[in-house]
Amino acid sequence: MIKQIAPDVEVIDITHGIPPQHVLQGALVLANTLPYMPAGVHVAIVDPGVGSERKPVALRGPDERVYVGPDNGLLLIAAERLGGVAEAVEIAEEEYMLDRISHTFHGRDIFSPAAAHVASGVELAKLGPALDPASLTRLEVPEPAVGEARIRATVLYIDRYGNVQLNLTAVHLGRVGIDPGTRVEVEVGFERYFAFAARTFAEARTGDIVLYQDAYENIALAINRGSAAQMFSVRVGDELRLTPA
Amino acid sequence: MIKQIAPDVEVIDITHGIPPQHVLQGALVLANTLPYMPAGVHVAIVDPGVGSERKPVALRGPDERVYVGPDNGLLLIAAERLGGVAEAVEIAEEEYMLDRISHTFHGRDIFSPAAAHVASGVELAKLGPALDPASLTRLEVPEPAVGEARIRATVLYIDRYGNVQLNLTAVHLGRVGIDPGTRVEVEVGFERYFAFAARTFAEARTGDIVLYQDAYENIALAINRGSAAQMFSVRVGDELRLTPA
Amino acid sequence: MIKQIAPDVEVIDITHGIPPQHVLQGALVLANTLPYMPAGVHVAIVDPGVGSERKPVALRGPDERVYVGPDNGLLLIAAERLGGVAEAVEIAEEEYMLDRISHTFHGRDIFSPAAAHVASGVELAKLGPALDPASLTRLEVPEPAVGEARIRATVLYIDRYGNVQLNLTAVHLGRVGIDPGTRVEVEVGFERYFAFAARTFAEARTGDIVLYQDAYENIALAINRGSAAQMFSVRVGDELRLTPA
Repeated sequence: MIKQIAPDVEVIDITHGIPPQHVLQGALVLANTLPYMPAGVHVAIVDPGVGSERKPVALRGPDERVYVGPDNGLLLIAAERLGGVAEAVEIAEEEYMLDRISHTFHGRDIFSPAAAHVASGVELAKLGPALDPASLTRLEVPEPAVGEARIRATVLYIDRYGNVQLNLTAVHLGRVGIDPGTRVEVEVGFERYFAFAARTFAEARTGDIVLYQDAYENIALAINRGSAAQMFSVRVGDELRLTPA
Repeated sequence: MIKQIAPDVEVIDITHGIPPQHVLQGALVLANTLPYMPAGVHVAIVDPGVGSERKPVALRGPDERVYVGPDNGLLLIAAERLGGVAEAVEIAEEEYMLDRISHTFHGRDIFSPAAAHVASGVELAKLGPALDPASLTRLEVPEPAVGEARIRATVLYIDRYGNVQLNLTAVHLGRVGIDPGTRVEVEVGFERYFAFAARTFAEARTGDIVLYQDAYENIALAINRGSAAQMFSVRVGDELRLTPA
Repeated sequence: MIKQIAPDVEVIDITHGIPPQHVLQGALVLANTLPYMPAGVHVAIVDPGVGSERKPVALRGPDERVYVGPDNGLLLIAAERLGGVAEAVEIAEEEYMLDRISHTFHGRDIFSPAAAHVASGVELAKLGPALDPASLTRLEVPEPAVGEARIRATVLYIDRYGNVQLNLTAVHLGRVGIDPGTRVEVEVGFERYFAFAARTFAEARTGDIVLYQDAYENIALAINRGSAAQMFSVRVGDELRLTPA
């Protein structure tokens, strides 16, 4: 669709690998990835509410980046990490949509055409009525509970290696005394495991459970050459407790 | 291969996700997708007969679109949806192939080189002898049996969400009185389920079985936030019976 | 990252489908594929040792192709197939890296930036100190044991169709009298199967086990319309014994 409307625009795919309906994972991957991408019109679609009342939106940041997608929180974490939302509109003008809008594939019928038109120079204001940026839907990112000597963390997502992304940064770990080299008890439900806080996988032996800072400065649990998600039987939203051991 | 022969040609991937040997799924996805693609030289390869007597072919439509692939029915549904076949040739001239032709990878050795040459301006007639378009291999798309108050439908393919594509349109459903909002009994083998005919997933609750019109105006069965194919244990070619309930 | 540094460079993806940590499979796929690719700066990353002492390197071949990746053997098989290594450097100059280097994602932080700079005209020697090509890490590709009437072969990798790639060519098969048409006993552990040596899948019936020369002139075991890897329960590194029957 983009190439039909804007043949000279270059399309770069970030990923088609977000599991269906995982809006939070999509939002976090987008926020992690965009700082490394050239500025442009960024289209993101994870859209379980397609066909409902959730609005299609286009947002502009202070640096002229534009974000196009559903107003379900998918875009906002990325936009805020890159300076916030200077302008927001609802995509409503049929002139910038496909002639026939399906009930289930707004990526093709609404979002891609809108993005292509914006990339070709159409101003955001032409796409539809302005929205108050403060009214945009916001995702709840669960906060960890950091105690004296223990952290209760939540699984944010699981990547294709089976690595378990937690809602933690090195700052949280530091507060309970978990530094690179520390041995850590990991409780998942009634099961207990021992991990060790490492800087890299290369420090770990095959089969070791490793608590490490990933490439986006988030904390994740991994098994060297294995799937941590499988070993722990955890899913997105599950809780883990970490204690220096 | 295309970039070696025609460095300035732009290559757009539609999908690499057709399951091996599913020619009919490939043909339907191609036919569904091409109307939304810029006109060009369209290469499609799902080719269980590679190395046999099936011919490599190039077809030209009335609108100058060109279709390149095996003569196993993969191209014809798309070409006919876009106006039919104005010219057909067998790809036979070695000048437009790779120097050494393998027995198993004609995508690399025959189809991509032919497509690249056509995209660079080589006329179809140079690729090999003309074929009568009426002689091209045609896939059997199973027809539904629509009775007074019941439809016997066939599974055409299953997409990556586990949605079950049927050989039905809204017209078939209308004939037995299944409209958006209707409750529908779905029989699969000796099992019975209740679905409801919905316009969108957003109308359904988690776990609901939904009979809906997909973005290509075909009818599919889905489970809101689940895999219908898994629940029904159906595979391509299986039959289902639908009755308004 | 490449597009941020070198917006006019064209990026062609060969694959993102190498299983995690399968350096040998990555090296073989690279070596098989590059002869069909336009010359360029070839970046390859399968990097279980990221964050350890393994060096990031850039190699130049005699034909001006450049290879960028970890010095773990991933690049060398391809480079040698295309004429060898004329120049090798360690990527060490921070000027050509991302500002902040993570411990786990050198693809983003080191390899892609280096490749983008080289594609933009930066000379290899600017990236860091020269390395002796003879000092580069070399992968052990297992050699088959070819007897009078029997071959002991090793599984090199398994492709997405479940086809089992062996460390054999048609020359090895010929030495024990296995030619197209020959019936072959395949021993895997204590199990025995009968395969037949075929030129193409089209010669085989559904369910037949086929020993065939793949599109890269390597020998593989496949099941017509099934997964050979699954039937044999084999994994990379496992041994099979082949005897004409």
